[in-house]
This record gives sequence, structure tokens and C-alpha cells, in this order.
Amino acid sequence: MANALPVSPLSRPLPELPPLAGVRFGATEAGIRYRGRTDLVMAEFAPGTTVAGVYTRSKCPGAPVDWCRAAMADGRARALVVNAGNANVFTGRAGFEATQANAADAARLVGCAASEVFLASTGVIGEVLPYRKISVALPGLYATLSEHGWADAARGIMTTDTFPKAATRVARIGATTVRIQGIAKGSGMIAPDMATMLAFVATDAKLPASVIQALLDDGVRRSFNCITVDSDTSTSDMLLLFATGQAGNAEVTRADAPELAEFRTALDSLLLELALLVIRDGEGVTKMMHITVTGAVSDQSAHNIAMAVANSPLVKTAVAGEDANWGRVVMAVGKCGEPANRDTLSVSIGGTCIAQNGTVVPDYDETPVVAHMRGREIEIAIDIGLANGTAQAWGCDLTHGYININGAYRS
Amino acid sequence: MANALPVSPLSRPLPELPPLAGVRFGATEAGIRYRGRTDLVMAEFAPGTTVAGVYTRSKCPGAPVDWCRAAMADGRARALVVNAGNANVFTGRAGFEATQANAADAARLVGCAASEVFLASTGVIGEVLPYRKISVALPGLYATLSEHGWADAARGIMTTDTFPKAATRVARIGATTVRIQGIAKGSGMIAPDMATMLAFVATDAKLPASVIQALLDDGVRRSFNCITVDSDTSTSDMLLLFATGQAGNAEVTRADAPELAEFRTALDSLLLELALLVIRDGEGVTKMMHITVTGAVSDQSAHNIAMAVANSPLVKTAVAGEDANWGRVVMAVGKCGEPANRDTLSVSIGGTCIAQNGTVVPDYDETPVVAHMRGREIEIAIDIGLANGTAQAWGCDLTHGYININGAYRS
Repeated sequence: MANALPVSPLSRPLPELPPLAGVRFGATEAGIRYRGRTDLVMAEFAPGTTVAGVYTRSKCPGAPVDWCRAAMADGRARALVVNAGNANVFTGRAGFEATQANAADAARLVGCAASEVFLASTGVIGEVLPYRKISVALPGLYATLSEHGWADAARGIMTTDTFPKAATRVARIGATTVRIQGIAKGSGMIAPDMATMLAFVATDAKLPASVIQALLDDGVRRSFNCITVDSDTSTSDMLLLFATGQAGNAEVTRADAPELAEFRTALDSLLLELALLVIRDGEGVTKMMHITVTGAVSDQSAHNIAMAVANSPLVKTAVAGEDANWGRVVMAVGKCGEPANRDTLSVSIGGTCIAQNGTVVPDYDETPVVAHMRGREIEIAIDIGLANGTAQAWGCDLTHGYININGAYRS
Repeated sequence: MANALPVSPLSRPLPELPPLAGVRFGATEAGIRYRGRTDLVMAEFAPGTTVAGVYTRSKCPGAPVDWCRAAMADGRARALVVNAGNANVFTGRAGFEATQANAADAARLVGCAASEVFLASTGVIGEVLPYRKISVALPGLYATLSEHGWADAARGIMTTDTFPKAATRVARIGATTVRIQGIAKGSGMIAPDMATMLAFVATDAKLPASVIQALLDDGVRRSFNCITVDSDTSTSDMLLLFATGQAGNAEVTRADAPELAEFRTALDSLLLELALLVIRDGEGVTKMMHITVTGAVSDQSAHNIAMAVANSPLVKTAVAGEDANWGRVVMAVGKCGEPANRDTLSVSIGGTCIAQNGTVVPDYDETPVVAHMRGREIEIAIDIGLANGTAQAWGCDLTHGYININGAYRS
């Protein structure tokens, strides 16, 4: 079914993904659910690799999320195993035992502790993970791991994604050039699946786990936590950042060290690129929305307003219909519970101010707005007019394609 | 356009609406936006009528909402004027002046203070209300007001509603039989409109404004505040309760007086019936959802969970597709931020327990579940397994019809 979906009109080609010292990737067909495509991905990291992670806030997380949270304790990683086709969610004790078995399998191959193996699963929920298929496939997969395996890995973690997603950056830490590179998968759904967002990023920089965790927390706040396809949070969302230390940069012990400024900028930019690739493959997407909020009472308030607009079904259907429906934007601002004042509110679409100070701008020129709405990337700017809080959010339209993908009767 | 929509498959016939002492209703064609249908409704209430109201929590409310909030101050009402086709929202000073003009018009006809006139508008937003059309039409409309005008009023407040909505009850206060009767309109959309929920309820009971306000607040909490079509809150939502005092019951001064027990039950039941009629006419609806949550840490927590499930696009599309997708229910419980524990969670659909204690019930009988999902009213019961908090919520499925109604390009 996944392969039957047409490629998103907002897709981007996979960039060139050069080797990153200390990371070897590979992918194989384990036959977990799909046929005729790779569905099992493995990575090995050099000894000394540190790890940071952010996870779904779901109260019903999958077994691999529980596993990774526990494995994070000492900040060390040597391997990653990801399967597509089965999310190992709501699978009780059997789910827990599957994570233990596969971590032990990978640890044996790599020669590390099981707690240095990170696991992720994406796909059907409520079905026990056929972990023996993974056990059988891992030794052969391990033998093929390569510094050139990034693109294969980006493809192997897809579910109903319509294109593979990756991004790459370089930055300098002191005199040393380091690389940051990541892959992601987005929202895909085959009944009874649920959307799962996974992203794996690695750098050859030498950085303690506490430092990369702080950088990741900060970067995610302004990237992955600012995107939404349909407001439904997966049980399996996971973003891991591995630092192999192979670049040999001078030691850095604090996330706010000045020599990390360029690295931080590069990481933030990479996380945002990956996050936007997920939006570009949102279910049924035909247009992206970029919401900018200024003038809110705080940045957090601005974020809540931006996300309310990005999640509003009425705003999303208006964008799908190429309708510059600023009234629905006003509605979404008004409903979200954040401080706002109708009489200081302004709304611009595609750079044209349409509503200001509590009323429509008389005789505003609709021509550039109509042209903008026909494009693929819709810019909505909202000024609350109360203080200096700002935020951005990214979303996509709500179309018949979304209903087709998610409303199909489970066979 | 409104008339082109097929009647909802979940519609209900309008009940018989007998006279209610002290209330006269009427409707006429003022030509505000629609042609060939009534769009202006007026009611006159007997002297001494008290009033209570609940309003949208939107930070960008319409001018009539502002007007009614101010007019509520002394708890007295003599008239109601409602127009369909223009919501008088985000219209700045012109919107305020329109409310003043129409309240003055109605006050002159009825012979009361302008502050005893209540106003509601529903329809297009961001366009100045053509209040002179209302001024011109009101005298003729006033001359036709009748105790038998309830059904005309229910029809005259419709926008893209596909059927008129009303409910009626009787109850005893002490030895006196009183009547409670109400009309409502639901979510309808013609670009660039936004959904508006309006409901007007009257009783001939003699009750102070403070008492009916307390009863209304309580009743709304378990009816209108537990329904959702698409999670988008209108700028114009308004529910008014008028008590004409014509039944001549003995004086009651407290909402918790024991002699009000039957009245309270009848009012609650009427409010819920009206609220569910709104769901039965949700945009694109083919199935209703009734969510029951038990075992949450508090009633408020249970409410938040129930609403998260009712609002989840993935749950709504699964219901549309007749898919008993309990995994998406688990996802929605998990994402909403309320205390929950995967390992104590149970989910039943149509009375069949599907998932329990963190895993699917092995070999549960799918046959009755499949049959239930093919019906019009879907029952989803969730036990959180933590404490005794309970709540109910009602929603509807998300279908191509919703996209058609809301994604049409504005002409």
C-alpha cells in the first residue's frame, strides 16, 4: 500500500550523504511486514560515541521508547536498530521482551553492552513484534554496514513516506571542521498504523552527552516541536543525536561555550530542514503553511497561537481550497486561550496585510494574495499587538488525500 | 449554497413546539445574505423575564457577543433579535454601531430599554452588518410575533444547517408544572464563514437571573461543552436562557434548592438534546461518536481525555472508515497530557473490550465490533484505571464531506 501513494508534490531530492567518521549504516529486507523493500536498518558507532535523545510525550509510549529512555542513562551508544512495519506499541510484556532480545542480538555482533544499543520501531501498533525475524536478519545486515549506507538507511525506515528524507551540514568547532548528518521519516498511515516520526542524526564532533542533549533540546524546541501534520502525537516519536568524536576537536564541556556557536547554528538548521521534510510529506499534503506570530505576550504564548493556527481544520481546509480566509485565522487565534486582543490584531497573507486593528483593511489588493494562495508554500503572519513574543510554526493543508489515507477500511 | 447540502443522515424531525407563556417568536426575510428564505428572527419576552447566558471564550468575539455580555448585567430581558448570513465579527467600530442601532430599534418596538434587547448574528465574518436592512424589516416582523412562532424561529437562524433543531421539556417546581423549550443552530460553513453555534432556551418558570445562570453554567458543562465537530471554536457561540416567570411557581432563590431538582434534570436533558442535534448536523457527518471515560484522576482529566479522543483526526477518520482502530484511541489518550498509564488502560468499542492492561485482548470477537462500526452511533469507552474521574463527550467523524464544505474556493 505504501508504494501505491504518489510522491508528495512538495518532495525534495535526497542530498548527497558523504561518510561521517565513526558511523556505518546498512539496510536489509527482514520481511517484518512489507515485501520487496528494505525494512530493517542498523548503524554501528565508534567506541566513545555519546548520545542524546528526545522522545514522544505520549503517556502510552512504545516499548522501544521505554528502552531508549533507560539506555540513555550513561550517555553512551554503539549501535542503532530500526525496523519499519511494526511499532511494537501496546504489546505488553511481549513488547518489552522483544526489545531485550534485539538489543542483546545487536550487542553480541558489535561487542558492546545491550544498554549501548538503541532501538526504534515504526508501523502497525498492537501487534507483537516478530523479533526473531530481526534476530535472523541482523548478522547478515551487520556484515554489510558501510560509511556509504546513509541513503539506504533513509529509505529503510520509511513506512508510508513517499520520499526518503535526509540533511547534511558542516561546521567548525575551533579549528576543526565537523559534519552533522541526519535522516528522518514522517507521518505515514496504513490502517491500523499510526503516524510515527523518527529521526537519527550523527556528528563526528567530540562532545559529551550532556552537551549534545542541551543542544538537541534547544534545537528541537524550534524545529520538530513547531511542526504539525494533524495534531495527533505518535506513541513512537524519537529523535536521537549521536556524536562519534572522530573529528578530534578540542574538548568542549558546556553547551553554551562560544566555540559551539557555529555548530549550534548548523545543528539547528539541520533539525529544521529534517522537520520541514516531514511536513513536505504530510499525509495528503498539497501545500505547506508557514505561520509567523509576533507581538504576543511571550514566546511560549506565540508558539501556542502559531500551533493553534497550524492545527485548525478550518485554516487547513481553507489553504487546501486556495482561500485567503483570514477570518478563520482570527478564529484560531481567538480560540486558543492565549492573550490576544481583537482590536490590536493584524493578519497578513503572502506579505499583504488583510486585517488590522479589529477590522478588514478596506480595499486591500486581493490580486497578490490570490496568486500567493495558488502557490505551494503559504505564508501567514499574525501580529498580536500586545508585546514582543514571537514564534514560527509549520503545517500543511487538510485534503481529500488525508481522508483517503486514514479513512480506508482496514482489510 | 446552504440549500444545496443534503440533509444529514443523522437528522431528527423537529418536535412539536407548543406555546410557552411569555414568549412570542417570529421570522422574516430581511435579505441580509440569503435569498428566498427567512434570515431574521425576533422574540419578545413578558415583562419580568430574567436571562442567563454563556458565550464563546474566543479572544476575538463578535460585536453581538460583546453587546450581550454587557446587557446581561442586570439579568433582565425583553427581546431577542437574531440574524443569519452575517456574523458581525471583526467589523470594528461599524460592528459596534450596528448592535447599538438594532438594539435601539427593537427597544422602541417593545417599549423597553436597549439593554433589555439581546442580539446574535451568524454567518460571514469581516463584513459590516447591513443593519439598515434589519431596521427596515423589524417593525413588520414584530407585528407577526406569535406564541406559535418557535418552528419558524428554529428555521430562521439556520446557516448551512441541514435541518432545524429544537427540544422541549416539562418539569415540576413544587406544585407548578413549567415548560422549558429551546432552539439551536449548529456548525455550518460557506466560505468565508466560520462555524457558529447559537442556542436560545426559554422557560415559563419564575426564577431569578442568578439561579438560571448557575443552572445554565452547570448544564452547559455537561452538554455543549462536551461536543465537538472539528475543534474550532467560533467567535459567535452563544447560549441564552430566558425565564418569563409566567408559570407562577413559588419563589426559588437558590440554584441548589431541592424543589429545583426536577427542573434541573429537565434543563440538563434539554441542553444535551440540543447539543447532540448540533453534532447530528456536523459538517460532513456520517457517524456520531460517543466517548465515555472512566477511571481518570479527576472528572476534569476525564473530560480532557474524552475531548482529545473526540477531536483526534485519526480517530475521526477511522470512524468514518468503519475501522475499530483502538490503536488510534490509545494514541489520543496518550497525547493529551493527562495522567494515564498504558498498562492499566482499557478500550472498548460497542461494548466489546478490545484492549486491556497494556495489550490487545487475545482473540477478542471482532464480529460484533465490525457490526457496531457499520452503525450510525459509535460507542467508545475508555477506562484509564487510575482513579474515579469520569466524563462523556460527543463528536462526529471526519469525511470527504467536511473537506468539500470547508475547502471550496471562495467565489
